Amino acid sequence: MERTVSPLYAAIDLGSNSFHMWIVREVAGSVHTLAKIKRKVRLAAGLNDHYELSDEAMQRGWECLSLFAERLQDIPAERIRIVGTAALRAAVNADVFLSRAQTILGHPIAIIPGEEEARIIYQGVAHTSGGCGKRLVVDIGGASTEVVIGEGLDASALTSLKIGCVTWLERYFKDRCLNSENFDAAIQAAKLAIEPIIEQYQTLGWETCVGASGTVQALQEIMLAQGMDELITLPKLKRMQRQAMQYEHLEDLDIEGLTLERALVFPSGLSILIAIFETLGIESMTLAGGALREGMVYEMMSQMRHHDVRARTLDSLHARFQLDSQHAETVTQTAMSLLASCEPHWQLEPQAEYLLHACTSLHEIGTCIEFKQSGEHAAYLISHLDLPGFTRAQKHLIAELLRRFREQLSSLPEQHAVSAQTATRLLRLLRLAVILCHRRDDNNQPPATLAVKDNQLTLTLPADWLADNPLTRAELQQEATRQTDMGWPLTLIES
Amino acid sequence: MERTVSPLYAAIDLGSNSFHMWIVREVAGSVHTLAKIKRKVRLAAGLNDHYELSDEAMQRGWECLSLFAERLQDIPAERIRIVGTAALRAAVNADVFLSRAQTILGHPIAIIPGEEEARIIYQGVAHTSGGCGKRLVVDIGGASTEVVIGEGLDASALTSLKIGCVTWLERYFKDRCLNSENFDAAIQAAKLAIEPIIEQYQTLGWETCVGASGTVQALQEIMLAQGMDELITLPKLKRMQRQAMQYEHLEDLDIEGLTLERALVFPSGLSILIAIFETLGIESMTLAGGALREGMVYEMMSQMRHHDVRARTLDSLHARFQLDSQHAETVTQTAMSLLASCEPHWQLEPQAEYLLHACTSLHEIGTCIEFKQSGEHAAYLISHLDLPGFTRAQKHLIAELLRRFREQLSSLPEQHAVSAQTATRLLRLLRLAVILCHRRDDNNQPPATLAVKDNQLTLTLPADWLADNPLTRAELQQEATRQTDMGWPLTLIES
Repeated sequence: MERTVSPLYAAIDLGSNSFHMWIVREVAGSVHTLAKIKRKVRLAAGLNDHYELSDEAMQRGWECLSLFAERLQDIPAERIRIVGTAALRAAVNADVFLSRAQTILGHPIAIIPGEEEARIIYQGVAHTSGGCGKRLVVDIGGASTEVVIGEGLDASALTSLKIGCVTWLERYFKDRCLNSENFDAAIQAAKLAIEPIIEQYQTLGWETCVGASGTVQALQEIMLAQGMDELITLPKLKRMQRQAMQYEHLEDLDIEGLTLERALVFPSGLSILIAIFETLGIESMTLAGGALREGMVYEMMSQMRHHDVRARTLDSLHARFQLDSQHAETVTQTAMSLLASCEPHWQLEPQAEYLLHACTSLHEIGTCIEFKQSGEHAAYLISHLDLPGFTRAQKHLIAELLRRFREQLSSLPEQHAVSAQTATRLLRLLRLAVILCHRRDDNNQPPATLAVKDNQLTLTLPADWLADNPLTRAELQQEATRQTDMGWPLTLIES
Repeated sequence: MERTVSPLYAAIDLGSNSFHMWIVREVAGSVHTLAKIKRKVRLAAGLNDHYELSDEAMQRGWECLSLFAERLQDIPAERIRIVGTAALRAAVNADVFLSRAQTILGHPIAIIPGEEEARIIYQGVAHTSGGCGKRLVVDIGGASTEVVIGEGLDASALTSLKIGCVTWLERYFKDRCLNSENFDAAIQAAKLAIEPIIEQYQTLGWETCVGASGTVQALQEIMLAQGMDELITLPKLKRMQRQAMQYEHLEDLDIEGLTLERALVFPSGLSILIAIFETLGIESMTLAGGALREGMVYEMMSQMRHHDVRARTLDSLHARFQLDSQHAETVTQTAMSLLASCEPHWQLEPQAEYLLHACTSLHEIGTCIEFKQSGEHAAYLISHLDLPGFTRAQKHLIAELLRRFREQLSSLPEQHAVSAQTATRLLRLLRLAVILCHRRDDNNQPPATLAVKDNQLTLTLPADWLADNPLTRAELQQEATRQTDMGWPLTLIES
């Protein structure tokens, strides 16, 4: 049973609200979680007006760290990174806390400057988010908010603002009232804090915007629970504010999809996000796949530097599930050439191509569990695996397409990754590509041509090729019936 | 994306009732299905009284083979095996069928003697079933029934009897009546056919008995659907016969759990099985994990020879899911030493130890999908993966134990692998072992001792060790509460 196992890594983040420990190992280019421990230490709440940490707050911190310490004992020092953020940056007696904390942990703790925090957060986002072009990253923490612009793995503007959902809660919602006075004051104050960076950031510009941290996560969960798509926009934020203001007090807040744990800092975080959207003129934002802790871990794993996060994710899944990469490539090429025939007429969304590619690349992942019902297994795996580079809505669509990649056909459920029409079209092409390559002759592409007129597909194949491949012909004929029965006309022509 | 992929293998079995093609590849010591195609060719039904195959039957066979041929084109000859069985052995004009069939397939077809069929079936069983000691294997086919005694991978008695569920259907249930006259005649005739081998087989003897083929599979499905355990016994077979006789005609047969496809040959297969149980004096039988096709494939994959099928299965899962084998071994050793403390008092069933071992070995398999809910993921994987060497009931128990290996505790559902009491006890030990090793310090076993009195467990650990491992202590204290709340008293003592 002896086998080399990749070593463990630990990232500890002494945040202003919670301390987190994350223990992982690297498995074939993926980060694999082995333990995740979080304690609400509320360090920031222990700071008095003179920025002194109270004894009680320090004690809570030390107790938490003695739990963490146990798990660090067997991990080599170079694979451990421990950072302290805003509350420890602010505390005038941080050295008192630190000296005992380092003894307990047996490892140095770095209290990192805000710009360094912003830089690491950007790494965490860049290693877990797809897409190209310049991106704006926003991470609202307990006592600071990081704003970054970068491209690929390199950040070009790094800012840490002294606004946070815990400090804003204490300052602008101290009376726990959800009225417009409190919201207005919170939003105005945040705008003032952002003011100095507006020009620099608007000059740099960006193409996509992602948000990290609890506030954005909470928004996503609410939007999901309320059946909205995953794009965060200013009108949606305003609607959330109106929903929140229907309740008098913070304690009464009961928005569908908002967990109790996140409710307390939700109005303050929301105010900050509204201020950022309005001052920077953000059109839409999606949730990042990672932030500070992910950045710490990916930076320790130097082998994980890969400029195309989505390609790294697909590669890693191929290695982890021993997929037949050659066959996946054949099916991908076939699907791409079918897509190329349809593109001029269909004019699909830009993400359609890489979503189809992800499906063709991973279409056999379910067979690793069991051949029978491999579509169901693929959907299960994709739904639960971490897929850096793909958003939650995209994961959901890939899972639903793979659930139907062969055998019986059924209509797709509601999804928010592409239009319903595009999703159906991707499904049709995916199924055709899989059948056309079903002989697994990876050296010869099937000589198929696809003609398209609206939703009518006509697939033409040489009669002699079909005669040589009767099983493929039988499957194509069945598929033509299945798609046509769904109201998606497909004709097979022998030329 | 280029990566070496293990080559394909194909096994084709031209059976008396159906033709089957099975295309697989080997992945880290597991057989991974890529295609399974079956066509009901009913060759045996095309034999006339002079044992001549009709033109129509041959035509049906050739048509099926031209479908199969497509998939064989890209597989090297040495990885293809094609065999014909009883109907082709019996047909006087088999050469006519064969000559065209070989042209269509482009590969030789071996019409194998009954003893060779029995030998390959035994290989298929031996490579997919656990347990040690001598085993009796029974495989009821359409036109022949193979009976084998072997140990490990070696067979010591090989017999092919000319009785089968299709021939017995045509001979004794020709009028389609489910009366006792037909059953008696079918059973008596089968007994006569078995008569010559009784003495040899009873002299050799066996410790376990497994059954392959559709009849036994159908019985398992019926028993499962009717909430029985998985052991096939003579009283259960008799009960099935009585259930069947409640219907007048074969066409009316509607037994819970019996699929339409299997219903036609169910009474005839059941009669043969009853005859075998009564003449050989079989106490109980379980379903084999494989038979002819599995034997053909495993014989081509010479690297798959492993005398302990269960160990091969665990090893393969470790490789396929990149499990941390060293940590699994630590948890296993800890669990085994806990079990050793309890054994003298608890006196568990013999299979308890290897079931606990399977759980400790695989306890982290769910984390390969996602850390959160890894118990649920483990249960999903174990339920759907092929686990050669473990019976269906054992797989079910392992899945249910792993679903609860950490976090919240809930009582186990009904299962048939061990007694309910034993299952609970295995769960308790599994959870304790996982917590005790949770620091992942694989060089040091935790210095725990376990005392047991009925269901009361007392776990003792040195106070200084617990002080050094406060997270483990916190988890053990929580576990003591959880188990005690379930009515399974557990006390933690610091010595």
